[in-house]
Amino acid sequence: MPRNLKLTIEYDGTDYAGWQRQPAPQRTIQQQLEDALERMTGAFACVRGAGRTDAGVHARGQVASFRTDSAIPLRGFQRGLTALLPRDIAVVEAAEVDDAFDARRAARGKHYAYRVWNRVMRSPLEARTSWHVHRPLDLEAMRAAAAQLLGEHDFSAFRASDCDRKNPVRTVRRLDVTSSRPHLVTLDIEATAFLKHMVRVIAGTLVEVGLGALPAAEVAAILAGGDRDRAGRTAPAHGLTLERVFYDTIA
Amino acid sequence: MPRNLKLTIEYDGTDYAGWQRQPAPQRTIQQQLEDALERMTGAFACVRGAGRTDAGVHARGQVASFRTDSAIPLRGFQRGLTALLPRDIAVVEAAEVDDAFDARRAARGKHYAYRVWNRVMRSPLEARTSWHVHRPLDLEAMRAAAAQLLGEHDFSAFRASDCDRKNPVRTVRRLDVTSSRPHLVTLDIEATAFLKHMVRVIAGTLVEVGLGALPAAEVAAILAGGDRDRAGRTAPAHGLTLERVFYDTIA
Repeated sequence: MPRNLKLTIEYDGTDYAGWQRQPAPQRTIQQQLEDALERMTGAFACVRGAGRTDAGVHARGQVASFRTDSAIPLRGFQRGLTALLPRDIAVVEAAEVDDAFDARRAARGKHYAYRVWNRVMRSPLEARTSWHVHRPLDLEAMRAAAAQLLGEHDFSAFRASDCDRKNPVRTVRRLDVTSSRPHLVTLDIEATAFLKHMVRVIAGTLVEVGLGALPAAEVAAILAGGDRDRAGRTAPAHGLTLERVFYDTIA
Repeated sequence: MPRNLKLTIEYDGTDYAGWQRQPAPQRTIQQQLEDALERMTGAFACVRGAGRTDAGVHARGQVASFRTDSAIPLRGFQRGLTALLPRDIAVVEAAEVDDAFDARRAARGKHYAYRVWNRVMRSPLEARTSWHVHRPLDLEAMRAAAAQLLGEHDFSAFRASDCDRKNPVRTVRRLDVTSSRPHLVTLDIEATAFLKHMVRVIAGTLVEVGLGALPAAEVAAILAGGDRDRAGRTAPAHGLTLERVFYDTIA
């Protein structure tokens, strides 16, 4: 019986067309991992990711699983894959898991961070991983808006118009607006699962609230209305990082 | 009489041959600034930087000054130059200063941060701005070593062997070893002025202490001996960032 392996992956998504394999010559994270794995083991294996991150989105704790007949030890997979992968992707953990484990289906929640660089002038050192918003944000207003999105709701108003998920109900367990360093505003959002572009639409909406373009009190009504056009714009991909995926057991 | 302007500059030094102008085709920060300035004002002006950062070194608060006959307002310089500069350089502040002000000669101190990524696996998201040290560092030992470098000393043992400064005496006002996030170790060093490669030799030496390759108690003897060969290796440039330059008055 093949082994089932779970990988934790970090990447700078700047130069990739997202997680999911695309027709060549598009470079994607999944394709880089599958290619490295095939070079290492001599056999192709499909690598299933917990989150299909968009083009330009980063990850500090993406999780993926795959089956292999190879006898290579875990440390060998971790180090060997990282050595074969380009500089902007690394396998930071490898574990052997129960045969039934599937990185996507078994995920019980995810933590994303959306970063905003909030200063008049752009920041060369933060540019790759944050959205530049040059007018000052009112963090208190953003927090008041964020509080209305906590809990279980139909998030139809906060997803891409072409999102095809039948059930738009999700539970947001955490939505914090903080500033750990001058000019850097971070939105930490944790939910059971996410609809397409959900974090980016929430980030775009909270930024409109922060700029005074949308009253914080309206957010509950936008949520209740279920109309995508009333929420804010979709914030750009490069401000988003998949921080962590949660599972019932480490397995 | 020409105006004397002071700029505060942030840059990601990854793709540059350092601050100082070099013969083409070498790209440097000074050259990019001087070229942008010439395009903006129509006249060449020499831009004097407070610190001649090495190839690959970053800055969040480099300071430079130049003279100009242009009547362009300060905001115009700040925004116009940033618009003309490549994405990895930005002017974050512009101020008009006394005619006697010279960014290099007037500097009363500098704050550099040296970042170490201390985990077995490399980090794609931290790779541009930190040195990857994969074996665990003993921060307490590093702090004990750092304490011996505080104050006024002859830093001959902690400079590049080709450093040509006649007076090797410098005063280190601050040398903190901290870890604000898991796996990230930051050395914050502030001194009146620095010798060539001084921060990088200090970082390399403290890392050797942290790895147990050099006893912390030896650092005072290495300092007193003045022999470059006894201190640690020069840590790589990409872990270093010039955070701030201090002046007597904001002017």
